[in-house]
Amino acid sequence: MSAKLNAKEVIGKVLEEKGKINQVYWIACGGSLIDLYPAHCMINAESETIESGWYNAKEFLLTTPKKLGKNSLAIVCSHSGNTPETVEAAFAAKKAGAAVITLTDREGSKCDSDEFISWVYPWGSDVPLSEVPSGITTALVAELLLAQEGFGKYDVIMESIDKMNGIVKAAIEKVNKEMGEAFADVCEKHKFFYILGSGSTFSQTYGFAICSLMEMQWQHCSYIHSGEYFHGPFEVTENGVFYFLQMGSGKCRPMDERALKFLEQYTDSYMVLDAREYGMDAIDPEVSDYFDPMLFYAMNCELRAARGKRFDHDVDYRRYMGVVEY
Amino acid sequence: MSAKLNAKEVIGKVLEEKGKINQVYWIACGGSLIDLYPAHCMINAESETIESGWYNAKEFLLTTPKKLGKNSLAIVCSHSGNTPETVEAAFAAKKAGAAVITLTDREGSKCDSDEFISWVYPWGSDVPLSEVPSGITTALVAELLLAQEGFGKYDVIMESIDKMNGIVKAAIEKVNKEMGEAFADVCEKHKFFYILGSGSTFSQTYGFAICSLMEMQWQHCSYIHSGEYFHGPFEVTENGVFYFLQMGSGKCRPMDERALKFLEQYTDSYMVLDAREYGMDAIDPEVSDYFDPMLFYAMNCELRAARGKRFDHDVDYRRYMGVVEY
Repeated sequence: MSAKLNAKEVIGKVLEEKGKINQVYWIACGGSLIDLYPAHCMINAESETIESGWYNAKEFLLTTPKKLGKNSLAIVCSHSGNTPETVEAAFAAKKAGAAVITLTDREGSKCDSDEFISWVYPWGSDVPLSEVPSGITTALVAELLLAQEGFGKYDVIMESIDKMNGIVKAAIEKVNKEMGEAFADVCEKHKFFYILGSGSTFSQTYGFAICSLMEMQWQHCSYIHSGEYFHGPFEVTENGVFYFLQMGSGKCRPMDERALKFLEQYTDSYMVLDAREYGMDAIDPEVSDYFDPMLFYAMNCELRAARGKRFDHDVDYRRYMGVVEY
Repeated sequence: MSAKLNAKEVIGKVLEEKGKINQVYWIACGGSLIDLYPAHCMINAESETIESGWYNAKEFLLTTPKKLGKNSLAIVCSHSGNTPETVEAAFAAKKAGAAVITLTDREGSKCDSDEFISWVYPWGSDVPLSEVPSGITTALVAELLLAQEGFGKYDVIMESIDKMNGIVKAAIEKVNKEMGEAFADVCEKHKFFYILGSGSTFSQTYGFAICSLMEMQWQHCSYIHSGEYFHGPFEVTENGVFYFLQMGSGKCRPMDERALKFLEQYTDSYMVLDAREYGMDAIDPEVSDYFDPMLFYAMNCELRAARGKRFDHDVDYRRYMGVVEY
């Protein structure tokens, strides 16, 4: 389906057919799954009527929720549109009677099928955030909550999606100036390090680790939730052990601030990317937690590029993904 | 409340007061949070009527679900009974009208309060699994599903809890004989490594990393979901990069098998702990996914002890936790 879609119409169509949505299931793998997490968090915190589940596509297939059915909405994302387990999960959800929205960058891929409400999105540095999965899913949730139960934060959410374009653009310039070289230095010095974050941003803590660093840079690292840090992981902290802290601008910030206070005292090796100093102070702190991941994704891209340049490791080079059989 | 509780009576009491439970929220930090995950997975897959949320206690406080209310059940766990954010979350859930069950090892702690249904559990290597959080939470879910909606797997679940004691006991002997020294060797050779797992077991993949290794052994490592491995993380795999694979016995096993096949081909450094070879073949594969974490927890304890002995690093020694302010 290549006709340009918008979230209000899509949700209108879903509700017209289904009457009421009781469950939203977010289904994807890797980077696509990461993009769906903030919208999952938004339902969890803000909805009075809807359950939300966030699943790796294969795990969804192997442990399919008994509740999946005619009042469920599956939102399925595959950038290539052909990720086998993601495509299979989309069809499984459809077969169970759910409404299925597929998001893909590839027109004509298996996800772009008349079986689903297929939303083919453009990709690239000039594409507004409202047109890529992170923005689309945020708008889908805002429209769903508005239509089904009323949603006081609807206006501020929709305005913030558009505001994010300018914030991210300025932040890209700032992070390259202030952190790019320093981060490449870190990667030269540390064969392994930790990344900390919380709330919706934890998706990009994970994403920085598994996509930007492990996949695209073969850089060893681990990802730790800032609130969980104090219940085990902090025991490895000492001088010379490096931490990259993604400090959120919204509701979950107190967890990141607590982690920062500890890092300041117990290691000489850390770096902080504070969302508030990178433009997120312009977003209402009541909702900014859902938008911080858009900022951190863009920052992850710049930092991995800086590392790639220093190490002469092309961020698009893969030795296994799409190269060998697995 | 020190009188001996049982899951059937507790759920009976909750349902008598609440009529119906619409949401179960699992709330804790670190090791206690890990123990609650399999029961969360069980509701997600098996329930027709109940939503399940699994939260770090601080994140629960900062992003409290709007749905939390008089038809919610909060199951809150703190081993010490005094973890500040966990205690605060228990009181917040109670204030919102939810039924609150607190699990703690410490009689007289803040979690052991008349405000809650407080379940004080014993701890130690001789305590049956039915009496500690992993078993208690499994039984609570089985009783809740049986009472509220009927549950065809009730009998096999309840029988399996008791069966696990013998399985774990034999597995402890076997793992020490077969893997203890080899794992200590790995830790001498690799300053950092990866742990892989999926499904309910992913809680113990995370737990092996953050509790057994980071907290108790100051061993650097990272934890990767076996299904997600192929969508980014596998690009770091090569000879000399070590992987510890927790291979589950149940529904999610295909993800672990796929990971094993890849490891066999692309690294010379890995170790597999196959639950089926450690006794889990005696549990019905339809439910064994929920019980594998009990096995892996016990295995994690033995392997960390083997490392502790080799490195002369007492597993009970802490430099920060409960020692400094944070």
